[in-house]
Order: sequence, then structure tokens, then C-alpha cells
Amino acid sequence: MAVSIGDVATAAGVAPSTVSRALHGRPGVSEEVRTQIARVAADLGYTASRSAASLASGRTWTVGVIAPYVGRWFFGEVLDSAEEVLSAAGFDVLLYNVGSPAARKRFFERMPLRKRVDGVLSLLLPTEAEALALRSLGVPLSLVVGGPRPGFTTVGIDDRRGAELAVRHLVNLGHRRIGMIGTTAAAPLNWTTPSERRAGYLQVLHEARIAPDPRLDVDGRYTVKGGEQAMTALLATRQPPTAVFAQSDEMAMGALRALRLHRLRCPEDVSVVGFDDHELAEVVGLTTVAQPVAKQGAAAARLLLDQLAAPEPTAGGYVQMPISLVLRESTAPPRPQPA
Amino acid sequence: MAVSIGDVATAAGVAPSTVSRALHGRPGVSEEVRTQIARVAADLGYTASRSAASLASGRTWTVGVIAPYVGRWFFGEVLDSAEEVLSAAGFDVLLYNVGSPAARKRFFERMPLRKRVDGVLSLLLPTEAEALALRSLGVPLSLVVGGPRPGFTTVGIDDRRGAELAVRHLVNLGHRRIGMIGTTAAAPLNWTTPSERRAGYLQVLHEARIAPDPRLDVDGRYTVKGGEQAMTALLATRQPPTAVFAQSDEMAMGALRALRLHRLRCPEDVSVVGFDDHELAEVVGLTTVAQPVAKQGAAAARLLLDQLAAPEPTAGGYVQMPISLVLRESTAPPRPQPA
Repeated sequence: MAVSIGDVATAAGVAPSTVSRALHGRPGVSEEVRTQIARVAADLGYTASRSAASLASGRTWTVGVIAPYVGRWFFGEVLDSAEEVLSAAGFDVLLYNVGSPAARKRFFERMPLRKRVDGVLSLLLPTEAEALALRSLGVPLSLVVGGPRPGFTTVGIDDRRGAELAVRHLVNLGHRRIGMIGTTAAAPLNWTTPSERRAGYLQVLHEARIAPDPRLDVDGRYTVKGGEQAMTALLATRQPPTAVFAQSDEMAMGALRALRLHRLRCPEDVSVVGFDDHELAEVVGLTTVAQPVAKQGAAAARLLLDQLAAPEPTAGGYVQMPISLVLRESTAPPRPQPA
Repeated sequence: MAVSIGDVATAAGVAPSTVSRALHGRPGVSEEVRTQIARVAADLGYTASRSAASLASGRTWTVGVIAPYVGRWFFGEVLDSAEEVLSAAGFDVLLYNVGSPAARKRFFERMPLRKRVDGVLSLLLPTEAEALALRSLGVPLSLVVGGPRPGFTTVGIDDRRGAELAVRHLVNLGHRRIGMIGTTAAAPLNWTTPSERRAGYLQVLHEARIAPDPRLDVDGRYTVKGGEQAMTALLATRQPPTAVFAQSDEMAMGALRALRLHRLRCPEDVSVVGFDDHELAEVVGLTTVAQPVAKQGAAAARLLLDQLAAPEPTAGGYVQMPISLVLRESTAPPRPQPA
């Protein structure tokens, strides 16, 4: 009977994937372990070429990563941490940056990943049709952002609850006129985060019996510049808000800049709470909802590696990461109204 | 005589690369132009298959991008803008994130780009040996960061002059005790930016007859956290500086945070000048040396596309982008010394 890679693995006391890596000269295996595995394989009469013809056949040692907006802090962090995990396991990363609806359409039409990757890590939420296209690749799929999704292993946070934490904090401070900076441009990209965070905002207003005012719900395009423009628009309303929930720290920091340009003080004149805990949130003293960004990228990459190492294809699963409100100096009770 | 792709291009009034794209159904060509080119090609008796057998043979329509630290603002911005240009021309991006010396060593040993890319865009400066390995790929090479480099088309800024602008500004304000936050970890990565900026700092001290004090030259690892720690170390010296030049805005913002934690005011107690004009520099009122970051990525990508479209291989060239000092609120004259 032929010696299998599993026999070598058992005899060497390592995983079959480690045997494969060691015998193919892939990284992620120490020289000591590699030597030991080669010795065990030789003892059992197992050769790397046989492995090449079976287990390792067709492996590209490449993971496709689909990401929108690599220049934005969140996606850069996720990508950096995922790439570190994948690279350490010997995988190259094939990055597709599909930020615009046009680039996205072209990507899913051409589906350039076919036969080029062993797995896919997506930082954008696919539509039903896109998910079907991805599943047709027949490789493990891992997804950052969003909740459970059939056929995918997903890692994310509870966006709605995060927004509730932020807005409830403002309500607890005594604010009644609360603006929100989010985006309406998310729909064509099937990006659920803005609508989930909006739902959390509306839920807390409802709990507090505050009638939502659509004039206070403005688009900041999830950029610093957009946040600045959105805050400027809020300040130009007939009755400006005393507090603002920005759906991302980058928009919140743009809002802080708009306040400065208007010679308004934060939090004395307007409170601002963000979302993310961007590495610069601490520098500007921004109260925010912290989410573990790098950890989400690393976790998604690890789950993908687990699936790649599994002898049988495994179905999805959802890992929800913890979030928490971080209090800094950008939020305070509203000023007493003139009598 | 056979009709060449150049004949079709001339007759249609477009570039040969546009003809190639149009006849191969690649994106980046409007339907109108595509139809017109197809008609001209048919009139001349030129067929796409002939083109496929010559000009376009062996094309992978993929550009390899080598980048360190995608999570850092500078590299994320460059990558985003380069990817946008390449994607619009129909090229996929194969990203290699090689931030650590170990990942870098593995990358150049394995050279996984071979036969997988039509060109390489590098955001890290290769050593002589690495440059040799890249040139052996026989594809166009474009480089962001650093000066002219044989065999490469490079895009960059004058790092030394940028540092001189920043430090001369501090000297002009009357500062004599000027610290610098840079990094010493650059050497193993062959990254010349920190040493060029240090040279500019030392040059201006020399001009101003200020003896450099090695205790004021500290390592901030080019991160926000590192900048915070470096500033803390500077404040703990026997005679702290009255002004600090941080070699990146991220380190400068970390320095601002350290000042805040020490209940020191900027610029009243310590002036801080950064480098980059990070999108959040304006938010925190940071005086800095502005460089066009996204433009460098886009320019490098465009130069690579030009080389790919050229009928003959073209040698290097160096594009230097403009820099300028942006005055904001983080710098001021030193406080009068107590008599």
C-alpha cells in the first residue's frame, strides 16, 4: 500500500499541511522541522513528488483579496494584518481594489480570480449574484464586514449596537438635537454598514422619544473631506444639532475641522462621537466606538487558512468581534439654553 | 506587406495600445472607439488574432506591486492611486506586502513575480542585488520613493530639501534646541528617506552654527505610537528641545499626543513640524512639509503604462514632485527664557 502524506504527518507528529509545506520548500516551517520531516518521509519511502501529484496538485499558494478603498484607514489596517498572517503561512496575496461601481462590475464580469487562487478574502459584501460567482470558484471564501452569510466564513462587528452605544451616550449627556454623518452612496456597493449604523441611531432616538429630523442626517462619504462638508451643512441648518454621531472616525475628524473653521469649540458648542477608534482618535481626543480592526483582518485570514488546511470543505460560520465606547474629550452635556 | 498594428493605430488616429485593447475586448476603450477601430482594422485586413500572435502574446495583464506597510497612510494612498490608474487601463494588481526584513528576503529569494506580471511597480527601494533580481524579470520597472535609479523609472521628492524647509522654519522662528524624530530601523530595509531627511536636518543646524546633540535625535519608527514614545523620551532629557522636526506626520501626531499627556501646549511650550501633509494634518493644525502623495502613485503607474505601450523597451528616468512648507498652528517662536 502506498504511503500517504497522512502517514508521514502522523509519524512526524505534525499536520499534513506542514508536511506538504516542508517537502515543497515553502516557508512557514523551521529548518529543524523541515529536516525532521524529510527524514521521516525518506524512512517511510514517501517522496515529495508523490505529494506534488496528489495533495498539493493545483495549489497556487495565492489568496485573492477583494478590497474597496485601500487608502482608507480601516481597509489598510485590515489588509495589512490579513496579509501578514497569509504571508507567514507561505501565501502570496493577489489584491483587487474595486472601489467604484464600474471597477466592481468589471471585476465580477471577468472574474480574474479563476484558477489563480486557492481562496478568497473579501473586504466587500457581495450581492447575491456576486456571491454566486464567488462560490462558483470552488475555493474557501472568507469575508470581513457584515453578519453571517451562506457559503462564507465571516468576521465582523455588530454595527447597529455600536451606533446605539454612541447615540445613547449623547442622549445620556442630555442632548436632544443629534445629527448623524453617514453616507447614502453605500447602496450601489451593497455595503450594509451605513444602513446598520443608521438603524442604531434611529432606534435610540425612538427609545428617547426624539422625532428624527431628516435634515440632521447628512452624507459624509466616509472620508475626512466629506465629514467636513457634512458638518458644515449641519451648522447651516436653521436649528443646528448640539451633538453629532459620525459613522466613522475619519468623518468625525473632518467634522472637528469644520467646527474649528467656524470658531466653534468641541465639546462646548458641539459634541462629536465617532466610530472605529482610528489610531489618531486618541491624538485629537475623540470619543468613539472602538472596534478591533487589525484583529478582524488577522482572524479572517486565519479562518481562511483553517479551511485551506481542512481535509474536507467546510461551510461558513460567523465570528463577531467585541466593540466598546471609548470616552475622550469630544463629548459633554449641551450648554444650558438661554432662558 | 503585412499590415501592422501601428498602421491600424495611425489610420484610426489612436495609440497602438488602444488598438490592442480594443481588439482584445479589454476595458478602457469606449464602445464607440472600439467599433471604429474594428472597422478600420477590417478595412486594412488586420485581424485581432494576428495582433494576439505578436504584440499581445504572453501578456498577463497584471502588474506586480511591491509595497511595505500598506496600513501606513503614505503607502495606502500611493497604492490606491496607482491601482486606480492601472485598473482603468485594464491591468490587475498583484500586491506583495513586504514590510519585514524576513518577508523581504523570502520575496526576493522566491521572486514569485516571474512570468506572472507585465511590469513591476515598487514602493520600496531595492538594494543592488534586489534591483538585479527585478531587472532579470525583463519587464518595465517603476519605482516610487528615492532618486534616479538605473533600469527603473522613478517618481519621488527631494527628501533632504524637504527636511531643510522644515528645520530652517524652526531656526527662523528663533529655535536653537531642535529635536528630530526619525528612525534608525531603515538601514536593513535599504530605505533612504530617513537618512536623507536626517542629512537635511543636520545641514540646517550646521548653517545656523548649532552643534547637533545626538540625544535629540530619536527613533519614532514612522508610526503614531513610535512618535509618542520618541517625544516622551525627548521630554525626559536634561534639557528638552523647544521645537521638534518629525520626519512624518504620523510621528508628529504621536508627538502632539505625548505633549497633551504631559500637559504641555503646542506651540507655546514645544513647536512641532511634520512631513507629508497627511489628510488629518489640517484637522490637528500641524505645520508640515507637503508632498503630493496620491499624485506620485498615479504618476508611477502612468509611466509604467507608457513603458508597456512603447514598441521598444525604454530606459529609466526620474520625475521629481514638488514639495512645500504648509504653515499651520503647531509652530511658533520659543518662549523667552527666564532672565
